[in-house]
Amino acid sequence: MPYSSRRATLRATLRDRELDALLVTNLLNIRYLTGFTGSNAALLVRAESDGASVFCTDGRYLTQAAEQVPDLERVVERPCDVAMAQRAAKDGARRIGFESGHVTVDALDALTEAAGSAELVRAPGLVEQLRLVKDEAEVDALRMACAAADRALATLVEHGGLREGRTEREIARELEALMLDHGASGPSFETIVATGANSAVPHHRPTDAVVRAGDFVKLDFGALVDGYHSDMTRTLVVGKAADWQRELYELVAAAQAAGRAALVVGTPVSEVDAAARSVIERAGYGEQFLHGLGHGVGLQIHEAPALSKVGGGTLLPGMAVTVEPGVYLAGKGGVRIEDTLVVRAGAPELLTLTTKELVVV
Amino acid sequence: MPYSSRRATLRATLRDRELDALLVTNLLNIRYLTGFTGSNAALLVRAESDGASVFCTDGRYLTQAAEQVPDLERVVERPCDVAMAQRAAKDGARRIGFESGHVTVDALDALTEAAGSAELVRAPGLVEQLRLVKDEAEVDALRMACAAADRALATLVEHGGLREGRTEREIARELEALMLDHGASGPSFETIVATGANSAVPHHRPTDAVVRAGDFVKLDFGALVDGYHSDMTRTLVVGKAADWQRELYELVAAAQAAGRAALVVGTPVSEVDAAARSVIERAGYGEQFLHGLGHGVGLQIHEAPALSKVGGGTLLPGMAVTVEPGVYLAGKGGVRIEDTLVVRAGAPELLTLTTKELVVV
Repeated sequence: MPYSSRRATLRATLRDRELDALLVTNLLNIRYLTGFTGSNAALLVRAESDGASVFCTDGRYLTQAAEQVPDLERVVERPCDVAMAQRAAKDGARRIGFESGHVTVDALDALTEAAGSAELVRAPGLVEQLRLVKDEAEVDALRMACAAADRALATLVEHGGLREGRTEREIARELEALMLDHGASGPSFETIVATGANSAVPHHRPTDAVVRAGDFVKLDFGALVDGYHSDMTRTLVVGKAADWQRELYELVAAAQAAGRAALVVGTPVSEVDAAARSVIERAGYGEQFLHGLGHGVGLQIHEAPALSKVGGGTLLPGMAVTVEPGVYLAGKGGVRIEDTLVVRAGAPELLTLTTKELVVV
Repeated sequence: MPYSSRRATLRATLRDRELDALLVTNLLNIRYLTGFTGSNAALLVRAESDGASVFCTDGRYLTQAAEQVPDLERVVERPCDVAMAQRAAKDGARRIGFESGHVTVDALDALTEAAGSAELVRAPGLVEQLRLVKDEAEVDALRMACAAADRALATLVEHGGLREGRTEREIARELEALMLDHGASGPSFETIVATGANSAVPHHRPTDAVVRAGDFVKLDFGALVDGYHSDMTRTLVVGKAADWQRELYELVAAAQAAGRAALVVGTPVSEVDAAARSVIERAGYGEQFLHGLGHGVGLQIHEAPALSKVGGGTLLPGMAVTVEPGVYLAGKGGVRIEDTLVVRAGAPELLTLTTKELVVV
């Protein structure tokens, strides 16, 4: 069980900050710390011991909580956050951290009243900080999520699912169904299928536009496995690739390779962005690369670190990130190539294994 | 366009409260007021006029915002909430309302700094209050969402999709695919399929459990259309219904009919709950009806009003609610019957039209 060891790490952080407890109310953070997947819960992590920590949910999740959180005291109350603040105070906690980046202004009023004479202390991002570096259980889930997406795309291409005359919507729907066949519990975000000139729109929603010979088809999609999100983009050509398409593709592929090569422990994230961006800028397409190079992935599809010009911090081993440069020629077409990778002591571990050669179907 | 008229109603509320502006940061509220469906935006509604109001998003949504929000000034900034607070102050707003039930403790710091000498005033729930009563554009979307779910279930039953030997997961997946066939953009929540003893778990997640002859199969599911959520539960029997199953079903059906009959304008919501609950309590199953009678539906699957013992307020024409009593016999099986309805001046309008007779397949 990775959960008790994650909580142990968090407890050390609390002691460093002289907090007696942390009231965790962000459901993703609760899932990270306990494995609970329901829609209503609060977790009181006590600095002193796991035995003093308490998990709270409501009556709907009684059975589920017993299965998923067998190793913590469980109580059923509503609302959970208030109940846990009361409990912390009752158990003698004097300085109670709360997730100030998650708790709303109104909710803090109720917590303050519940905590009585105990002090509520802003403690934003403590669990997010731990989530920044994935443990092996998390990487396993990401690996499975990436494999489901890889296999779905392979199946789609093999049986001719990408062909003239199909609509973006049909392709998106089939890709999502294939991910379920390959073990996903769902797509990790709304699948992007963009054909022809639509491929020049970075975040295009699938329409009834029809694939035609000579189109770029951009597919940006991912699978959800055990709550973890994969993220991959491939851009293919249907029919026959024109010279401008091959040139654009090779440019983006070179930028993407440069971005991957820059995933070295200790590198500032802004330099990773620059490594890929400079390739595109030197080719004169800097203005057509409209977004950051990538982002962290995990229990959220977008999480820290942001690999962008303005991103802060450096790469740590165990960070899971995307590398996804793109060049978009309005009215004509665009290419984006994206992988999900884990930063490692040596070379990064590539989780999305679909070829990055230009595929013409 | 219903959006400008919704904003006009909100502006009247702001003037009543002597607010110069409302900074809307809840994305569902922004969608309600503008039609914008992207994942990042803020909206500054000025009390004085729609022409002084401003919509903000980021570069990814430039094209989409131009299409969806053609009638407001649009700016591209990041972060949007801070930009709109600055803009409000710059434009001379002195009292700026903010959504204190949505804005986090940390976010308020940034807004306070951005607002300079203007006053930020807590204004929770103003848009939610408007959303409580659906206009006809909203009811149309709910009607389509309910129709997609009705048709999906009819198709599933017609072609024998509910039969011995299938797993809960298979049935859930097919039902979700059928909703897409019938016009849904997705399921409105995680589909519940619960067979045999699992039907006694109110919120059961589909497993590999197999449908057997004599099982209750409880299906709780809904479709998403234009952002609006339908919600329906039906409980069927596979093979042959036993006497206890018929009796339990008739009891829940009677309670559900009583709940629907109580959907009369001006009735306290707790009395609607009581109308259904008393039928079940008189039969001696009060302890086995573990949850509230129903909830509002709209841009969220659960929204106000809560039809429960402790719910406050009375029914207004145009409220869209579920009525979903259930009786759960642990280890044996359970029945829930749920409709989505709109409260009207006369009888409520039923949106989920699937029969509530006991269906044996």
